[in-house]
Amino acid sequence: MNERLQRQLDFIREADRLKRIERRNYLSCGSRRENSAEHSWFLAIMALALGEWANPPGVDLFKAVRLVLLHDLVEIDAGDTFLYDEAGQGDKPERERLAADRIFGLLPEDQGAELRALWEEFEAGQTPEARLGRSLDRLAALYLNFLSGGRMWREYGITAAQVRALNEQIELGSEVLWETARGLIDQAERRGFFPAEP
Amino acid sequence: MNERLQRQLDFIREADRLKRIERRNYLSCGSRRENSAEHSWFLAIMALALGEWANPPGVDLFKAVRLVLLHDLVEIDAGDTFLYDEAGQGDKPERERLAADRIFGLLPEDQGAELRALWEEFEAGQTPEARLGRSLDRLAALYLNFLSGGRMWREYGITAAQVRALNEQIELGSEVLWETARGLIDQAERRGFFPAEP
Repeated sequence: MNERLQRQLDFIREADRLKRIERRNYLSCGSRRENSAEHSWFLAIMALALGEWANPPGVDLFKAVRLVLLHDLVEIDAGDTFLYDEAGQGDKPERERLAADRIFGLLPEDQGAELRALWEEFEAGQTPEARLGRSLDRLAALYLNFLSGGRMWREYGITAAQVRALNEQIELGSEVLWETARGLIDQAERRGFFPAEP
Repeated sequence: MNERLQRQLDFIREADRLKRIERRNYLSCGSRRENSAEHSWFLAIMALALGEWANPPGVDLFKAVRLVLLHDLVEIDAGDTFLYDEAGQGDKPERERLAADRIFGLLPEDQGAELRALWEEFEAGQTPEARLGRSLDRLAALYLNFLSGGRMWREYGITAAQVRALNEQIELGSEVLWETARGLIDQAERRGFFPAEP
């Protein structure tokens, strides 16, 4: 087999491990936690369904889809860092950079550089596609937490105020989706999905 | 909230259920079976890594990625039909058509028609993108079965001859990937990953 193809197969074999990285939030039915591979698929489906609400309109949807498909691959080495874990955020960039070196480095050089650049673009969050992808990433967790009756929020004692503060940046990718997110948080609060404020 | 957005959110909520549809094959590490949502993500990653080997070259990669992201959504209603289950194949088209009516029907009409057309395109397997997607679908299961030491093959008594016959159509999407697949089957046979022929 040619070396190029062998390297691509090595990358795919490695990617399979993302299916074993567990996130904190539950599926909508609350039956189990979500893993990062199925989460990435869910974001891609959201991009196809909700991409029209990006601001500014007219994002490159293929790029947005690739960004979300690739954005969590580094967790194979670096693990999932819980959004509400402030200590864990500290060395996250360094851990993830090393992971990107290794994982995208499995691919043929040109292709590894291309996919790594997409990962960096998502991380930097400066382009409309990256902002959309990051907004969908937040909205996905919020929506699943909402649908599962706030199971994760109560488990970790996360309040409505914290959820509002950490999800505000959804607005950077889409004003309409931030409006949607606020509506979900309000409704969750009325239904008692959050733990009581201390 | 506007009705269009509400319908899109309903579709996404429904899509989440694909994470609970179990396939027969195991993850590469053999620790558990794969679900259809993470499988769809895996195919999209394969399309990004291996798309260059499609024949003819120059497929529309965004279309190929959308095809594989959407191809299994109907399993939410119709379940996963095991490739080697000949009886189950019988009413599969009808079950899946009804599922597509319902699931894509959740979306706004224009968007539902667009995504459903992509699902139909994958099913028909006539365009280069659909042929690539279908080849990746076969190769993914073959590769994971290979990496897990043939666990699923032995569990269901599936022979090397059956695997060769059912994977031959990988060639329709990519000659190079069919050559790769044949190499994996040969190697699996030498390593004793298949059950003994009766």
